[in-house]
Amino acid sequence: MSEINKLKILNDPIYGFITITNPLVYDLIQHPYFQRLRRISQMGMSYLVYPGAHHTRFHHALGCMHIMQKTIQVLKFKGTDISTEEETALNIAILLHDIGHGPFSHAMEHSIVENVNHEAISLLFMDRLNQIFEGKLTLAIQIFKGEYHRKFMLQLISSQLDMDRMDYLKRDSFYSGVAEGNINSERLIQMFDVQDDMLVIEEKGIYSVEKFLVARRLMYWQAYLHKTSVAAELILTKILKRAKELTQQGVILSSSDPLQFFLQNKINLEDFNEEVLTKFSYLDDFDIMGAIKSWQFNDDYVLSELSKMIINRDLLKIKMQAEKVDKSQVIELRDRLMKLNNLSEKEADYFVFKGKIKNQAYNKTGEPIHILKKDRTIEDVVDASDQLNLKALSKPVTKYYLCFPKVLLEKAAC
Amino acid sequence: MSEINKLKILNDPIYGFITITNPLVYDLIQHPYFQRLRRISQMGMSYLVYPGAHHTRFHHALGCMHIMQKTIQVLKFKGTDISTEEETALNIAILLHDIGHGPFSHAMEHSIVENVNHEAISLLFMDRLNQIFEGKLTLAIQIFKGEYHRKFMLQLISSQLDMDRMDYLKRDSFYSGVAEGNINSERLIQMFDVQDDMLVIEEKGIYSVEKFLVARRLMYWQAYLHKTSVAAELILTKILKRAKELTQQGVILSSSDPLQFFLQNKINLEDFNEEVLTKFSYLDDFDIMGAIKSWQFNDDYVLSELSKMIINRDLLKIKMQAEKVDKSQVIELRDRLMKLNNLSEKEADYFVFKGKIKNQAYNKTGEPIHILKKDRTIEDVVDASDQLNLKALSKPVTKYYLCFPKVLLEKAAC
Amino acid sequence: MSEINKLKILNDPIYGFITITNPLVYDLIQHPYFQRLRRISQMGMSYLVYPGAHHTRFHHALGCMHIMQKTIQVLKFKGTDISTEEETALNIAILLHDIGHGPFSHAMEHSIVENVNHEAISLLFMDRLNQIFEGKLTLAIQIFKGEYHRKFMLQLISSQLDMDRMDYLKRDSFYSGVAEGNINSERLIQMFDVQDDMLVIEEKGIYSVEKFLVARRLMYWQAYLHKTSVAAELILTKILKRAKELTQQGVILSSSDPLQFFLQNKINLEDFNEEVLTKFSYLDDFDIMGAIKSWQFNDDYVLSELSKMIINRDLLKIKMQAEKVDKSQVIELRDRLMKLNNLSEKEADYFVFKGKIKNQAYNKTGEPIHILKKDRTIEDVVDASDQLNLKALSKPVTKYYLCFPKVLLEKAAC
Amino acid sequence: MSEINKLKILNDPIYGFITITNPLVYDLIQHPYFQRLRRISQMGMSYLVYPGAHHTRFHHALGCMHIMQKTIQVLKFKGTDISTEEETALNIAILLHDIGHGPFSHAMEHSIVENVNHEAISLLFMDRLNQIFEGKLTLAIQIFKGEYHRKFMLQLISSQLDMDRMDYLKRDSFYSGVAEGNINSERLIQMFDVQDDMLVIEEKGIYSVEKFLVARRLMYWQAYLHKTSVAAELILTKILKRAKELTQQGVILSSSDPLQFFLQNKINLEDFNEEVLTKFSYLDDFDIMGAIKSWQFNDDYVLSELSKMIINRDLLKIKMQAEKVDKSQVIELRDRLMKLNNLSEKEADYFVFKGKIKNQAYNKTGEPIHILKKDRTIEDVVDASDQLNLKALSKPVTKYYLCFPKVLLEKAAC
Repeated sequence: MSEINKLKILNDPIYGFITITNPLVYDLIQHPYFQRLRRISQMGMSYLVYPGAHHTRFHHALGCMHIMQKTIQVLKFKGTDISTEEETALNIAILLHDIGHGPFSHAMEHSIVENVNHEAISLLFMDRLNQIFEGKLTLAIQIFKGEYHRKFMLQLISSQLDMDRMDYLKRDSFYSGVAEGNINSERLIQMFDVQDDMLVIEEKGIYSVEKFLVARRLMYWQAYLHKTSVAAELILTKILKRAKELTQQGVILSSSDPLQFFLQNKINLEDFNEEVLTKFSYLDDFDIMGAIKSWQFNDDYVLSELSKMIINRDLLKIKMQAEKVDKSQVIELRDRLMKLNNLSEKEADYFVFKGKIKNQAYNKTGEPIHILKKDRTIEDVVDASDQLNLKALSKPVTKYYLCFPKVLLEKAAC
Repeated sequence: MSEINKLKILNDPIYGFITITNPLVYDLIQHPYFQRLRRISQMGMSYLVYPGAHHTRFHHALGCMHIMQKTIQVLKFKGTDISTEEETALNIAILLHDIGHGPFSHAMEHSIVENVNHEAISLLFMDRLNQIFEGKLTLAIQIFKGEYHRKFMLQLISSQLDMDRMDYLKRDSFYSGVAEGNINSERLIQMFDVQDDMLVIEEKGIYSVEKFLVARRLMYWQAYLHKTSVAAELILTKILKRAKELTQQGVILSSSDPLQFFLQNKINLEDFNEEVLTKFSYLDDFDIMGAIKSWQFNDDYVLSELSKMIINRDLLKIKMQAEKVDKSQVIELRDRLMKLNNLSEKEADYFVFKGKIKNQAYNKTGEPIHILKKDRTIEDVVDASDQLNLKALSKPVTKYYLCFPKVLLEKAAC
Repeated sequence: MSEINKLKILNDPIYGFITITNPLVYDLIQHPYFQRLRRISQMGMSYLVYPGAHHTRFHHALGCMHIMQKTIQVLKFKGTDISTEEETALNIAILLHDIGHGPFSHAMEHSIVENVNHEAISLLFMDRLNQIFEGKLTLAIQIFKGEYHRKFMLQLISSQLDMDRMDYLKRDSFYSGVAEGNINSERLIQMFDVQDDMLVIEEKGIYSVEKFLVARRLMYWQAYLHKTSVAAELILTKILKRAKELTQQGVILSSSDPLQFFLQNKINLEDFNEEVLTKFSYLDDFDIMGAIKSWQFNDDYVLSELSKMIINRDLLKIKMQAEKVDKSQVIELRDRLMKLNNLSEKEADYFVFKGKIKNQAYNKTGEPIHILKKDRTIEDVVDASDQLNLKALSKPVTKYYLCFPKVLLEKAAC
Repeated sequence: MSEINKLKILNDPIYGFITITNPLVYDLIQHPYFQRLRRISQMGMSYLVYPGAHHTRFHHALGCMHIMQKTIQVLKFKGTDISTEEETALNIAILLHDIGHGPFSHAMEHSIVENVNHEAISLLFMDRLNQIFEGKLTLAIQIFKGEYHRKFMLQLISSQLDMDRMDYLKRDSFYSGVAEGNINSERLIQMFDVQDDMLVIEEKGIYSVEKFLVARRLMYWQAYLHKTSVAAELILTKILKRAKELTQQGVILSSSDPLQFFLQNKINLEDFNEEVLTKFSYLDDFDIMGAIKSWQFNDDYVLSELSKMIINRDLLKIKMQAEKVDKSQVIELRDRLMKLNNLSEKEADYFVFKGKIKNQAYNKTGEPIHILKKDRTIEDVVDASDQLNLKALSKPVTKYYLCFPKVLLEKAAC
């Protein structure tokens, strides 16, 4: 295929068109590692609440690249020098920033591998692709790792107001129909500038930043941390845990080969050699959901019951509250379930459990969102806004949940 | 769950909210037969062209029900009597009209079962659900089969301007981002009326009908029959065909149990007893894609090559044209491929083949779209429109395709 | 015209269609008093900043009625009895709630008449229409005045989350293109309920309320109180003031007859007899803008200069700040202008002046927005929200401005 | 104001943001000649049917410039050389292409001046601005007049698929809410190319062109030629005619000075010296509507009756049909009106009249829309489309109307 034919235009219902302006970017998109992202949903189990939320990591990554291109245009228009090499590197870095995500995105981040986060795996993929593409990704990787001397470039990829967050809020809002999450990314992009090697937002964009933070918080509580999604993702985690447990006991569960590999082996970051990476690259939502579909009919009560819950959307009851859940409540429910269904304590623990979730719209202790004042000084958005106490948005919110089977519902205090 | 709690509201990015106004409808949606539709994509392989097109039959069915509700409101406002029982039956009939779809919707309609269309299977599901819900679906089934005396009710469910078509055009346009397919369903709904037991459109809605037909044709050529989707769906069909062939030869292919059943047995409509229906109800996109993922590594050259094409989106080259493809061209390409890859003729046929696709925006010989003139007479939309020769839209358009591997490309006359 | 033909459907780009469901409502809309609203812009001079903001009070009033209809449907669905008479009265009350607005909406509220607010004039119009329509508006007027025993009905028309605010935020955002002001009115409407004769929002709608308040604040600072609009509206007020002053001095200014009447007479609320109301009903944006166009060429320096500013969008410079403007700064600028253009102090005051504007997204001391908790108790939204310190939104924000001619700019400390 | 501060960004609800990238363009926009367009509505009297249709020529001109910028980007990306001077000239030419429009756009094109179309006046304004800006508009004027050697540049400004048409269809559809008129301008722009100095559309954009033509036809019949708008615009024309007639008879009608000038003088193209141009530049919708408001109370029966119709939206009845209106029908109605209201024949002619309107979606005899086939040959879109008989869209459609007062309605054959 000629280089010129690699300059493609893709339809996107959000931005209209996404343009591939570079043959190397085209080749990366064509690579099976990246094509895999077509089979990894962006919003995990949220489709059980919002039936439209079936969009993928693939689409999100392209969307990020699109707004990166727009942002680069704005920064250049305002006088920041960005070379063609840097531009390509930024496009690649944002395109690949999530390539290490496993099935169902965040839902299973720590279930398949042992304490390896997706950023670390993204880096492994990038290094491998850099070999394949003979060093052409080196600058992108430098930027991604924060090792490049121009610091604002990392902020474009990873900060509290980066391309990633802008695209996922807009995209998740669009596909799920949670209209309140929609942000005005176009305006935010117009407000970007670089000052003292820092990514900043012009002062007149301060309301848009505030709206962005409010929208983000709203998406968390209304979509990402919606109690039904949370319940479904917890069940998913429990299913994987049970499957690993059974596998360790020597039970052979039907599953795809790559999934079988990760059931049988505990993989830490140091184990991630090329072979393991290849296995990992074969894993996607289809392996998990395919296994769960077949596990519905497994002899193990725990595995089959939990699997049916996901497939038929007949989930555990979840109760969410501002106060901690009392341990005694868990014990009481668990004991009732043990008696009712003749289960061991360990088995019952799969159905009755508690925990907490936390969210913080803006993290004052992390890298701040910088506001560029008219006098060219820079302030943290929280300090710059004299109108809304943005501090409120910096306060982490914690919620506590309790899960248990519906069969216990009549007598539970809900 | 109390009956009142079954009156739910769901988010929909297209209509805002979809309301479940009836406990029976709620119970049908909760049934595993219907939940299965969450795992069947609406647009088959179109996501390979339009990365956003991952919406499901589940969402589409709910959307159809929503506009059915709106249409019933309009018809009642204009004076047509519709009883509560009829209203519920119409909601159910449209909700379940597509429940018989197999994996990847149309793509595989005749690959898994032998010449059984999805409408026939939908009816089997409805009959089974009618048993389960003790006869409460009888009126819905009567309407669906065209056996109810009020004929306009069938037209709401199945005609050239029905709820189904309105929702899928709007939804497919929305999720794929092919903006030209968007139709003004709201205006069309406002224009509906019933005259002489026929569903009609008020004369002043004639431009909207015309726009609907143009949009439909456009969606066919730009999305549903886009050459890349067509290529992918043809490959999918070839994969299934090869898998069945190998299975008949005694090869055991890895696959889910339900898929294995359909590989091993030729199922005709008369074979569709309750057991078969149950097996069929376990089948969805995940069985197919899961199998294809594993078949990438199968020993059979044909099966593995075709499977890789789908997984890595590295498809056969497809050439589309207005004229028939010459048989000699196929033979010449096939022979070259046989030599190149040392294949038998039968094997090579899986990679080099031709065929045709046809589309007709409006079928003048079928049930017409009726226009209600100001003097209360009724005319076919084609005759009523004095402005655009809608006859042009009634002319079927046929296109011919030729598929072959890219490796032959250099010398092929494309 | 037959009663049935008065049930009309109007296009609205925001809601799709607005339906007139009542012949009396149709007749009110047809009345010249209401048709006048077609010639009164909703956003005053904001079109000088947002060129799309030319929508009218007429359209806004219809939009309010539309969401009133939707809200009534929801409340009835949830079990609140609302009779047909009450429904019609609510539609009428919201339709006419702004009928007393003078030219350019708020901009000139106290320039044409003396300390008569538009609500008082709305009531005068309603009373007059009630005479014309033989008492059919009595219930609507009772509700509007808060004299009806069902208090939630007034809250639908006038409270911190009423039909008026929902429509104007959505509409102003739409037409101006300030996307951040868009609110999810559809979701808010779905969340409405009535408890203890109070309009409440279900607890799960709390994020939408918060988003509504943030959007409202944003629209204030980004659109309604945008410094350029503020400058233009201040100039408008100064023009009227000057015109009245000259008229009092015996100068005959060219103007339409109705405007001439209000230039020559100081009209208080008690002066508003039928004749004055009729004169007022002839006044709209065209009288003001027509006069200003001709006053560009008036001999009076102040009047002509200010008029040219509006017509050619060549406004006074405005400086906005968080701190009070120092009187000495005004004096210094005024003195320079006096010398420069040979003006008297009084004349110069028309060009150099200061003032303040204030906004409060949520008024904790007024009627609160009530949240209906799951246990059916009611709380103020500020207390119910444990997540964002909504108190921040209750804090009034004051900004101070200083206006002066651009000619002084070089040396002014801006 | 510094040159850098003239690079402005404006909100536009349709495109998000419109960017002024050139100080000269900024200065032209600031000029009173251009600011006048803020007071000229784009859709004439259509707001009487579509209450949202109050957008202006000013906004439309900016929108045209925006898509011109986008199109130039695409053409350059595909390899067409366009110099910075040409780019600026194209922006200016499209910005000013409609600057010669009089009040209410097309409605009054031949009522105020005698047989001078708005293009001719646009050119007069451009020439004047070229003097003021010392020759900087010379290239823009050359392009506008078709005198520049690169012919595709004129096609961007004036052809059957130019920036003007794309913007007005999109904008009029947006503001009026006639959703069917919305076109995918973004996709059309992506499809533009230049071949042999001709503006062409890539073959794969053919469906979008077709949809554009269908949308255009639809906007004509549903919006621009909606019978109520047509009636209102005819009444407007009659009012002006009557006003001129009375003025010729020596009656002094109240009006603004510039309007008075055009009532008293018959202005042909040759009369258009600088003084006349200046007078014309003072005229806008406010002069006309202001005059009509005052003429409601004029002693002349014809003038006051027609004026009231516009102000109160109580228009003449209009009947539209495919066949010519019979002269005898007009005479019969006119005679009845004469008797009923004691009018002379001449007076009655103002209330009872007939005529025709014509529209052609695509003009096969004019400059065609060129399709660039894959083999780089060029075809007329009508010939290139093998699917829809686009010839149908080339057939002019004529409709005949009959207008008469509602008072005659009871007995008229409608």
